[in-house]
Amino acid sequence: MSPRLLGSVTISAFAFLATQAVADPLSSWNDGASKQAIIQFVAQVSTLGGPNYVPPSERIAVFDNDGTLWAEQPLYFQVMFALDRIKALAPEHPEWKNTQPFKSALENDLPAVLSGGEHALLELMMATHTGMTASEFSMIVGNWLSTAKHPTTGRYYTDMVYQPMLELLAYLRANDFKTYITSGGGIAFMRAFAEEVYGIPPEQVIGSSIKTRYEYRDGNPVLVRLPELNFFDDKSGKPVAINQHIGRRPIAAFGNSDGDLQMLQWTCAGDGTRYCLYVRHTDAEREWAYDRESRVGRLDKGLDQAETDGWTVVDMKSDWNVICSLEGN
Amino acid sequence: MSPRLLGSVTISAFAFLATQAVADPLSSWNDGASKQAIIQFVAQVSTLGGPNYVPPSERIAVFDNDGTLWAEQPLYFQVMFALDRIKALAPEHPEWKNTQPFKSALENDLPAVLSGGEHALLELMMATHTGMTASEFSMIVGNWLSTAKHPTTGRYYTDMVYQPMLELLAYLRANDFKTYITSGGGIAFMRAFAEEVYGIPPEQVIGSSIKTRYEYRDGNPVLVRLPELNFFDDKSGKPVAINQHIGRRPIAAFGNSDGDLQMLQWTCAGDGTRYCLYVRHTDAEREWAYDRESRVGRLDKGLDQAETDGWTVVDMKSDWNVICSLEGN
Repeated sequence: MSPRLLGSVTISAFAFLATQAVADPLSSWNDGASKQAIIQFVAQVSTLGGPNYVPPSERIAVFDNDGTLWAEQPLYFQVMFALDRIKALAPEHPEWKNTQPFKSALENDLPAVLSGGEHALLELMMATHTGMTASEFSMIVGNWLSTAKHPTTGRYYTDMVYQPMLELLAYLRANDFKTYITSGGGIAFMRAFAEEVYGIPPEQVIGSSIKTRYEYRDGNPVLVRLPELNFFDDKSGKPVAINQHIGRRPIAAFGNSDGDLQMLQWTCAGDGTRYCLYVRHTDAEREWAYDRESRVGRLDKGLDQAETDGWTVVDMKSDWNVICSLEGN
Repeated sequence: MSPRLLGSVTISAFAFLATQAVADPLSSWNDGASKQAIIQFVAQVSTLGGPNYVPPSERIAVFDNDGTLWAEQPLYFQVMFALDRIKALAPEHPEWKNTQPFKSALENDLPAVLSGGEHALLELMMATHTGMTASEFSMIVGNWLSTAKHPTTGRYYTDMVYQPMLELLAYLRANDFKTYITSGGGIAFMRAFAEEVYGIPPEQVIGSSIKTRYEYRDGNPVLVRLPELNFFDDKSGKPVAINQHIGRRPIAAFGNSDGDLQMLQWTCAGDGTRYCLYVRHTDAEREWAYDRESRVGRLDKGLDQAETDGWTVVDMKSDWNVICSLEGN
């Protein structure tokens, strides 16, 4: 080894050590009770020989997506996708101009769409999410994500993910956790970006789904997406889906709404050390502020149980010094 | 580094190389076309920079269970479990003495049970697999596996796993494959032993399932198993379930019956290097011999497509020098 190379290796080694000492894996989290609670939990379950040690195979952490890992206002982003698809497909469906809820969707009248309730939303979802093969649908979602912009921020939807939560995902994985998404959103929709954006591979994405049918077309097998709901992964559905996909109880759960309450209950009622956290949307300036009265992402019963059971409630405004990495704050 | 330490490192390195040269990870497989095809496939997809390289994240291998990883005669072992449970539960159900298919089950009349077709089997399954919580069911299965014996071999069911397939699972994992079970058998039934017996964790077990319901009982959440089929993971259901659980197409698939045909089609029709293998039961002496005419584990259309598409067909009698590790042959 030449002295010059040795010198450069030595400098690199020092630089590495210096970085290690300085770098905070949760640097977007302000010092405070929320951050301390996370760090303490991870230290407890990772300390070999400690009283709260959990073997890596059981370090399962589940995350809601909408409002927990990325934003969800003014409407779930997947609904924005459906509305954009309605417009794109409208030329093939002249009848939509005079049929609800398609008429309101084409007129950008969100309140009118919402007034149709879950039935109207389901109709829009089925019209835009089914009828193609599974791989065709992935491509459609991928194209949309790389072109569509959020109506009020003007940003790509995948740029509206929460930097503190990305750091939390990476921090848990660095401590041998397996991180899962368990969302009311569509499983195929989320898989189109979860690996690239969150580092979560498709097999660790759990969500709502429609039925699919296997067809063998001249030696070319395809999975066709059918206009029939298979599973709605929300509320009491979340523990059911977790049991179906993972087959063991998580030790940590992260959500932001009453739709996540049963997932948090199921997780934190298990034996041993457990951790549950709610993200509370408190920052009307940098993001949105909403909880007990909100139509999208309501957090009401969950807040009560968080207080009773001592779960962490993140105050986005005071706990996070950055919300999205590209916002320049 | 001291000369002594250097010496010990050198000796360890030699010992390591010597072990590598001697130990055959597929030692229960006789040299021949089947073994060579497996080794060649794994080498191709693992050779970094080679034309057939596949990154580890995409090295997904799916295995059927009954007849592929363990035996399935005279009936699927889960049906044997159901029959044993019927006997155990009979005192609580005096009406079963006079009601089919329970009457035949209690009289050990397997042909009569089978003559009732799928409907009779489903009725026996629902009576024995539902009505309890998910964790209660796991315990029941665990207790059965540790006590029940196979009617003709007199061995524990989990001792009737195929040693060559255990070696194959380990060999694939050593080459950065993620190994999954995709079986018509019950997902919760298999999870009770898959990790200990096959090294396959619960989140990599896919199977048939019944519906479950989340209940919050005085702060104690449970998942209750309901007498309603959720999904039948066989034939065309296998690619559907693989897409639902894994979200990407496997590059290798292993089965033994026509129930696995669609899984093998789906796997081997993908782009790039793919591998499909059928286990053919040809050894009436050490195991059972059956294929095109068998009621359990029929392999007919699959054999035809294996020949057309060049899939490996394992001849258990000539390809495997050991079938089960404890049989002493």
